[in-house]
Amino acid sequence: MAFPTHVRLFEMGARDGLQNESGPIIDTAVKVELINQLSDTGLTHIEAASFVSPKWVPQMGDASEVMSNITRKAGVTYSALTPNLKGLEGAIAAGVDEVAVFGAASEAFTRKNINCSIKESLERFAPVIEMAKEHNIRVRGYVSTVMGCPYDGDIDPAQVAAVSRDLMDMGCYEISLGDTIGVGTPLKAKRMLEAVAKQVPIELLAAHFHDTYGQALANLYAVVEEGVAVIDASVAGLGGCPYAKGASGNVATEDVLYMLNGLGIETGVDLQKLAQIGHWITAQLGRTSGSKVALALGCN
Amino acid sequence: MAFPTHVRLFEMGARDGLQNESGPIIDTAVKVELINQLSDTGLTHIEAASFVSPKWVPQMGDASEVMSNITRKAGVTYSALTPNLKGLEGAIAAGVDEVAVFGAASEAFTRKNINCSIKESLERFAPVIEMAKEHNIRVRGYVSTVMGCPYDGDIDPAQVAAVSRDLMDMGCYEISLGDTIGVGTPLKAKRMLEAVAKQVPIELLAAHFHDTYGQALANLYAVVEEGVAVIDASVAGLGGCPYAKGASGNVATEDVLYMLNGLGIETGVDLQKLAQIGHWITAQLGRTSGSKVALALGCN
Repeated sequence: MAFPTHVRLFEMGARDGLQNESGPIIDTAVKVELINQLSDTGLTHIEAASFVSPKWVPQMGDASEVMSNITRKAGVTYSALTPNLKGLEGAIAAGVDEVAVFGAASEAFTRKNINCSIKESLERFAPVIEMAKEHNIRVRGYVSTVMGCPYDGDIDPAQVAAVSRDLMDMGCYEISLGDTIGVGTPLKAKRMLEAVAKQVPIELLAAHFHDTYGQALANLYAVVEEGVAVIDASVAGLGGCPYAKGASGNVATEDVLYMLNGLGIETGVDLQKLAQIGHWITAQLGRTSGSKVALALGCN
Repeated sequence: MAFPTHVRLFEMGARDGLQNESGPIIDTAVKVELINQLSDTGLTHIEAASFVSPKWVPQMGDASEVMSNITRKAGVTYSALTPNLKGLEGAIAAGVDEVAVFGAASEAFTRKNINCSIKESLERFAPVIEMAKEHNIRVRGYVSTVMGCPYDGDIDPAQVAAVSRDLMDMGCYEISLGDTIGVGTPLKAKRMLEAVAKQVPIELLAAHFHDTYGQALANLYAVVEEGVAVIDASVAGLGGCPYAKGASGNVATEDVLYMLNGLGIETGVDLQKLAQIGHWITAQLGRTSGSKVALALGCN
């Protein structure tokens, strides 16, 4: 056991969350308000936008407007997804602090999503990472489908390790390991992590586990027990699962935080504030919070 | 680490679940159908009824009718809650296989619930346990509020251990440790368990963890890691939380089973069948399944 004393929460609600909510395009003002409120909870890392073609992701079409209208808080890193050079240029122009590229450990998933092999996807990221470096912008690498793929089924932990290693070698400062369809269970999470940690120092790894099968907290506990100290989560569990209608996607930040508080792990984040933001944003979306902690605290 | 190779699931949906659902009294025929369907999933232990005054728990007023109308399946133990001698007599007349008494680790909770001290509550159970023994009926002991109390707050693990030990010494064959308000987190669960296991052999302990704060699976993983091999759960997460409106109560059996399957732990229970029953019963109640696995499997 090597519990970290501090865990950094990486808040996904405004990007990964809202992007995967069904329903109409959300007003830019609501996104800006969400990010501003999140900035006031003690969170230090907020994924704020995705600089991707609005043809593909209409919900993120106002990335530049969002970035230019938020009130930047000192000590908070506002990041954005940048799948290509055009996206990166937009992100640089908008003044994002940090960018991210989005890979996968599954060939079939990569093929379906961006119509190329994993190797080709990494080659496409290379110039993005290079240009970001030239602008002194840190790049985060996402690896999705680390515990299972909607097309390929099981994923070999060695494959997750190889892609993670490649992204690190290319210059990513942190690798976020995504259980994109939430199929993992605790021992599977541990074994996957152990395989990756042989290639990438555990200090550079983040856990991005979805709660589609209700397993996210158990899986997070299993990897935190191994020393993982960065966790991606989404306020109110924003973001559904595109692979199963009505199912959950991102794990709720409130529920992760409640667990970390109980484990005596420091985060610097205010649970009550976060739960209130979760109630507010889900009311905007016409649904109830997906955080059990928020429902139990009853602050809606 | 001492993972069990087999875990026995104790199904709570028909009693603890339905009893805590809001809404009108459920038809006896629906309860009977639920229990019959559950009997056909591989579950070996089903809590089917509560022999308690219908003045206090109207939802369980048809306990005798339920027991006399179910189709008994060989190999399945049908149990009932019997808070007093009158209840036990009813349960014996109805031919239940096993009964249970319901204690707590919190003085305030005991006082609020049954208006006596913990010591007095145990004295009241003594003749119930004695008479059950005379009829060769096994008695299970529940200890509630093992990780926190809605009135007393934190609960000393030593207090949980003492009540558990008393119930065992009085003749209970198994002690089910209930996180009644779902406030526990994994290390707290481990520490509570370790304290109890010093007084009661771990083979006699069951985990009955509620999911009010979304922590149940993580907590279950933590105690299964220590060797706990009996888990109480409720199909579709039946049963809300009387202490927080709209919040969850029992952990969903489907979600527990999915985790155990992933851990390679044998249960003998069929996940697909269970998820379908969960969809059926929650449709009867006019709501969707509270199991994330059931929603992800999409079998409604």
